[in-house]
Amino acid sequence: MDRTDHVAADSPTYEDVVRAHQRIGGVAHRTPVLTSRLTDEELGARFFFKAENLQRMGAFKFRGAYNALAQFDERQRRDGVVAYSSGNHAQAVALSARLLGIPATIVMPHDAPAAKVAATRGYGAEIVVYDRYTEDREAIGRALADERGLTLIPPYDHPHVMAGQGTAAKELFEDAGELDALFVPLGGGGLLSGTLLSAEALSPGCAVYGVEPEAGNDGQQSLRKGEIVHIDTPRTIADGAQTQHLGQHTFPVIRERVRDVLTATDEQLIECLRLFASRMKTVVEPTGCLGFAAARERAAELRGLRVGVILSGGNVDPSRLGAFLAS
Amino acid sequence: MDRTDHVAADSPTYEDVVRAHQRIGGVAHRTPVLTSRLTDEELGARFFFKAENLQRMGAFKFRGAYNALAQFDERQRRDGVVAYSSGNHAQAVALSARLLGIPATIVMPHDAPAAKVAATRGYGAEIVVYDRYTEDREAIGRALADERGLTLIPPYDHPHVMAGQGTAAKELFEDAGELDALFVPLGGGGLLSGTLLSAEALSPGCAVYGVEPEAGNDGQQSLRKGEIVHIDTPRTIADGAQTQHLGQHTFPVIRERVRDVLTATDEQLIECLRLFASRMKTVVEPTGCLGFAAARERAAELRGLRVGVILSGGNVDPSRLGAFLAS
Repeated sequence: MDRTDHVAADSPTYEDVVRAHQRIGGVAHRTPVLTSRLTDEELGARFFFKAENLQRMGAFKFRGAYNALAQFDERQRRDGVVAYSSGNHAQAVALSARLLGIPATIVMPHDAPAAKVAATRGYGAEIVVYDRYTEDREAIGRALADERGLTLIPPYDHPHVMAGQGTAAKELFEDAGELDALFVPLGGGGLLSGTLLSAEALSPGCAVYGVEPEAGNDGQQSLRKGEIVHIDTPRTIADGAQTQHLGQHTFPVIRERVRDVLTATDEQLIECLRLFASRMKTVVEPTGCLGFAAARERAAELRGLRVGVILSGGNVDPSRLGAFLAS
Repeated sequence: MDRTDHVAADSPTYEDVVRAHQRIGGVAHRTPVLTSRLTDEELGARFFFKAENLQRMGAFKFRGAYNALAQFDERQRRDGVVAYSSGNHAQAVALSARLLGIPATIVMPHDAPAAKVAATRGYGAEIVVYDRYTEDREAIGRALADERGLTLIPPYDHPHVMAGQGTAAKELFEDAGELDALFVPLGGGGLLSGTLLSAEALSPGCAVYGVEPEAGNDGQQSLRKGEIVHIDTPRTIADGAQTQHLGQHTFPVIRERVRDVLTATDEQLIECLRLFASRMKTVVEPTGCLGFAAARERAAELRGLRVGVILSGGNVDPSRLGAFLAS
């Protein structure tokens, strides 16, 4: 069985999203869908914002992590989990592990937001630090897994993680109805791939867009080139989308189903962050602003349509948030 | 009939709150009740936050203004309404007037937050500016009413306004159940008096506290003295509670029913504002933080109890919010 066959066999389906939704039911929040009359008037479309910034631990990542850890066998539960993450996946694995009684080790970058590090530690996880710009977190994670017999749960490239992330869009379509377009933050593609599975099943006519930071458009390049493009760690305020490449599992799902991959600049993200705070009184982290930033740029094409936007998370240090708002 | 009899005759009851709730139904939002596991764990009590920062125009004020304007007769509707306000009541009257097709004139302080002035103008109201520290807004409002035949709707001292504001607590008790204590921002007493009527009817054992800025504790002084105490306009970041005195209508309701009036410093308000943003991803204006600031100070007494807090509004300029968060 070659690599491609292996990936295809593992590829999650919408049925996996449905099962994931049952698994996380009563544990994850069914987050609200926010609307804004002023935004609808201004942009001439109806917007539906899936508020995953109000998810447990502050981001959609909890869905995928819990779905993965809940499927551990007895040995895996006893020996523990290891994860590497720029922040939200770390908290997601740490919280899921605590809820399920599994020991957790988290590999985090040295410059991860202080709030994310503190929250991860607060959930009882052991933290191992690495340099985001010089060290390979995947290698560190794999080494820890081998040495200590831990199960590695990667932040996006895992069928159980992808299926879990798809439950956010499932809820969005169930609550808001079918949509014409849906804008989704894109880092490694866990959220986007899961979203595409739900969209295909629940709103087949919906054009789903992945949105990356302009400084790290590896997904856009990969889509154009037809293969996974690797880039250096991009410097962007969207710390949840500083990934260097899509995954072996996420890329095929995305390539087959996504309408396009768009980008947004840091300045556009800050503008959206301000709009969310002032109009909707809600705190969205820079990465969580990617979808709306791209949608605003395309407002002319969206006129009269029903448009979904996934606000992927809200974890941003108050002082950093303050600097963005005051700038 | 002397002044006191007149006031007593006009005093709203819980029945007025119920009728106000019917009147604003389908127009005002039934705002959510937010909870925070982390806050409950930290303070050892169960907290229920009534999120009036998510109300239309961003504050509870819409409830009272709409309830008042919806009761205008034909002549009043045609000739128009005038209101004076530090901000949120202005927006509330302007929006209510637009929805009901009534011309609106708003008297606003020269240093009102830019976002509030812009929003008020955006609702189509005419704006008249005055100096908060040297001029008497009530006199300006009354003069405009006399000259132009406008109906003056004061920001708090009006039975219809008080009854409308009481609908927020009515919803809170309906959604969260009975409470042991409830902390309510106190400016002129519109929200607090309406809240007391709802608490008396729906949660008779609930101890209701009004909370003022420490720099402007006229309500606390009035309660101690048994009569309305007037103060100079206090300098505080809680711009929605810079009132100089309670009202002829609000004071009797408050004096008879409130457990106590407490105070909070600007520093405590900023700390709460930060907690709301970082933990609950929600933007609360300084005035809206008064209730939680006082509750946190009394955490020891609240241990094991069910505690309500009204977040009265979320209208704060992004740059000002940024400065608070970064400080």
